[in-house]
Amino acid sequence: MEPGPHSRPAEPGRCVSGSPGAGSAFPASLPSGAGAEPGSRPGTVAAVLPAGGCGERMGVRTPKQFCRVLERPLISYTLQALERVCWIKDIVVVVTAENMEAMRSVIQRYRHKRISLAEAGATRHRSIFNGLKALAEDQPDVVIIHDAVRPFVEEDILLRVVTAAKEHGAAGAIRPLVSTVISPSADGCLDHSLDRGKHRASEMPQAFLFDVIYEAYQQCSDYDLEFGTECLQLALKYSQTKAKLVEGPPDLWKVTYKQDLYAAESMIKEKISQEICVVVNTKDEESAGHLLKEVLKKKLNCVNITSTVLDHTGGDVQNLLTDQCYSFICVNVVSSDFQETQKFLNILEESGLPLLYPVVVVLVHCLDLTLAPLAAKMESLMWIRALAEDMKKRNVLLSGLLLNYSKDTFVSGILWSIKSTEVTLDPVPSLLLQKDEKMHNQFFGKDEQKLQESLQQGASIIAALVKERSSALAGQLLLA
Amino acid sequence: MEPGPHSRPAEPGRCVSGSPGAGSAFPASLPSGAGAEPGSRPGTVAAVLPAGGCGERMGVRTPKQFCRVLERPLISYTLQALERVCWIKDIVVVVTAENMEAMRSVIQRYRHKRISLAEAGATRHRSIFNGLKALAEDQPDVVIIHDAVRPFVEEDILLRVVTAAKEHGAAGAIRPLVSTVISPSADGCLDHSLDRGKHRASEMPQAFLFDVIYEAYQQCSDYDLEFGTECLQLALKYSQTKAKLVEGPPDLWKVTYKQDLYAAESMIKEKISQEICVVVNTKDEESAGHLLKEVLKKKLNCVNITSTVLDHTGGDVQNLLTDQCYSFICVNVVSSDFQETQKFLNILEESGLPLLYPVVVVLVHCLDLTLAPLAAKMESLMWIRALAEDMKKRNVLLSGLLLNYSKDTFVSGILWSIKSTEVTLDPVPSLLLQKDEKMHNQFFGKDEQKLQESLQQGASIIAALVKERSSALAGQLLLA
Repeated sequence: MEPGPHSRPAEPGRCVSGSPGAGSAFPASLPSGAGAEPGSRPGTVAAVLPAGGCGERMGVRTPKQFCRVLERPLISYTLQALERVCWIKDIVVVVTAENMEAMRSVIQRYRHKRISLAEAGATRHRSIFNGLKALAEDQPDVVIIHDAVRPFVEEDILLRVVTAAKEHGAAGAIRPLVSTVISPSADGCLDHSLDRGKHRASEMPQAFLFDVIYEAYQQCSDYDLEFGTECLQLALKYSQTKAKLVEGPPDLWKVTYKQDLYAAESMIKEKISQEICVVVNTKDEESAGHLLKEVLKKKLNCVNITSTVLDHTGGDVQNLLTDQCYSFICVNVVSSDFQETQKFLNILEESGLPLLYPVVVVLVHCLDLTLAPLAAKMESLMWIRALAEDMKKRNVLLSGLLLNYSKDTFVSGILWSIKSTEVTLDPVPSLLLQKDEKMHNQFFGKDEQKLQESLQQGASIIAALVKERSSALAGQLLLA
Repeated sequence: MEPGPHSRPAEPGRCVSGSPGAGSAFPASLPSGAGAEPGSRPGTVAAVLPAGGCGERMGVRTPKQFCRVLERPLISYTLQALERVCWIKDIVVVVTAENMEAMRSVIQRYRHKRISLAEAGATRHRSIFNGLKALAEDQPDVVIIHDAVRPFVEEDILLRVVTAAKEHGAAGAIRPLVSTVISPSADGCLDHSLDRGKHRASEMPQAFLFDVIYEAYQQCSDYDLEFGTECLQLALKYSQTKAKLVEGPPDLWKVTYKQDLYAAESMIKEKISQEICVVVNTKDEESAGHLLKEVLKKKLNCVNITSTVLDHTGGDVQNLLTDQCYSFICVNVVSSDFQETQKFLNILEESGLPLLYPVVVVLVHCLDLTLAPLAAKMESLMWIRALAEDMKKRNVLLSGLLLNYSKDTFVSGILWSIKSTEVTLDPVPSLLLQKDEKMHNQFFGKDEQKLQESLQQGASIIAALVKERSSALAGQLLLA
């Protein structure tokens, strides 16, 4: 079927602001433009998310879409992924009557927007049909059908299936087969195997002109509704629409078994650990943060490490908090600076950032053994424990990290490490200004090595805290 | 083809002792018995493990079988899984010339047994053929073909495919399809979709009578060797053998993409965290360990928590070290007991246990604030840091955990918690022996609550250390 003219005026794609994770602006002309006649109206796009499954394959009681990953139900990640795409106007989640209340509280708690609910039927096809019925009154031009348990869907593949659906009437993401597919005979033996190169796995998302898929569901048989698994097949059979197949990325995979849930958790942890921000104060010793930042950069070379200065207005940090960064390393060199930390945590909490993911905050304190013994320093930082207990309830994982160095080592370490005149340290012992590196090493070599070791170990600890986001370790004072 | 009589006398299955992770005894009569004529000789079983792939789907340079999981190459886990099955007599690993040396050092480092190497061909089928050729001289009755990147294969499924192969000549593990399989037309559109219920994914392991599969490979065409993906299909086509299909468990899945590697790591971590041993010393205060054990049991209700007493011979611990336990919680109530700890670590190292997995050891010290301030206690335990640095090189992750309680709280806590007369504590303050729980609570309620909180937090920390096995956190003194 060729996409016909639509009876209802469609709105151009427009970003809904304030959605969690918003930030990707969709060019209004694109989803309607590609493949459509020049001058045609941009179309509206909605999505149906069947989430009525019972998760029996997972081997757990909780339906897999409600299984928790970093304490948040899996379906919330999928909703977030769809919501982030501002040109998807409505998202209909189809859940069983039994799970309706749970779903409502997920939407409320994680502040999901543009969601409406429909009741699931007894099978996947019946559930999708119910979702489409919910859209029928104010019908969109294109409807995306996705799975609640494929949380890693990106805007790119959504755009490609929507664009292809506009041109072909239907489109779906596919992937190469991982295993050879075989057909068993009645006695449980091999009848034949299929040529792996000639077949593909049909994945999600799929997209359809609303008329195409709605008509298909209205016309299809009870047998189809009961036993069918493939929407593209319904469009082919009942709307004579040959779906365009679009190659998708590997992370479209469906969370089906326990190992998939583990994989999802690791993927999400990796994703939110791609940005680390080193927060320094405005004092001279901010270079400690700089030094640590350089070591972190080398150690975590796939991670984007930025730094920001926390001034009294908190302005810079505020900007940063809109930037999908969920890990903060706050470096206070001399003082414990309880007040400044508290101020930073307030800004963090007000930003709403900890709403979706646990935020890691590491308070780095440099330990000068020439000034105070380790034990005294640790005692003086016990406030971190109490504060962490409180912050944990707000999904902020706070811990302390003591970097072991003495002031002299530290300053010489900076000079040795950066070897540039850009850095001005005041006061710098005049001895350090001499250029004879050999003599310099003679004076400071051992201390420098210690400092470097301490920085390396500190960076490893930070990497582990950021990567693992273990709430059990919040409040600990770690020593590097 | 019916399995014919074999020209070579076959040996009965016999356990090869000394293999890492050995422990599952295979009943010698079973693999040959099921389905074979009564009185027939037991057969020999070998395995071919094609590992010549380049892992391009993973998106990394290292071939996926050599990717590291908990610092050990994935293929070593698969070898361990096969090796553990004592009735598999030979394991032929097929690797590219380029990776031959790397493979040899994996075998040496992790002390794999019964392995020989063959050189990979340009395709999977050519590699398997090379592996079979390596077995041809001293040919086994049955050959298992498995994937280097399916590390979770269990004895049960191996036995089932071998047994079925003895009866049918060929057999392979299958799984239900996760996605619908479709056939694209030449223009990249949907031609038709396959009925998901009538097809299966062909997985590994597979097993064949040696003659059946060797003959098939000798007769098959260059086209088959170049483009084929399915050994069962070759057996059907060239040896007229209809393979029996055997339903396998979900953890047979193939590590293909980055998310699979994450999943594998989590699965392995989960597996080795299923046993926790609480090691107590022989002094009166061993009940601290008991108390912690009870809390751990409640907190980790899927984990098997045992306890053992470390006497001067280390006998009990020695037994425990053969028991696939990789997490030890050593509770020393009063003293720091450096020597005892050192003795335990020596036993641990001599056992070879840290060879395959990182072993977590948490040294729990109870902190009596009425006797010494926190800082002093921490200073007195700094030896743990130095020791941990050393043990890390030996794959033992040592850390310290300070439980915050005072002696009185502790004793009353035990009585309150256990509420049984079995425990005899010497000396027990007579006050505690009175049965009036209300009055008891009045005296100890607040302290008890503190103790319970401390134990709960301690158990959470232990759970995190055991589950995450982060080497970056080794050497830390944690506080509960």
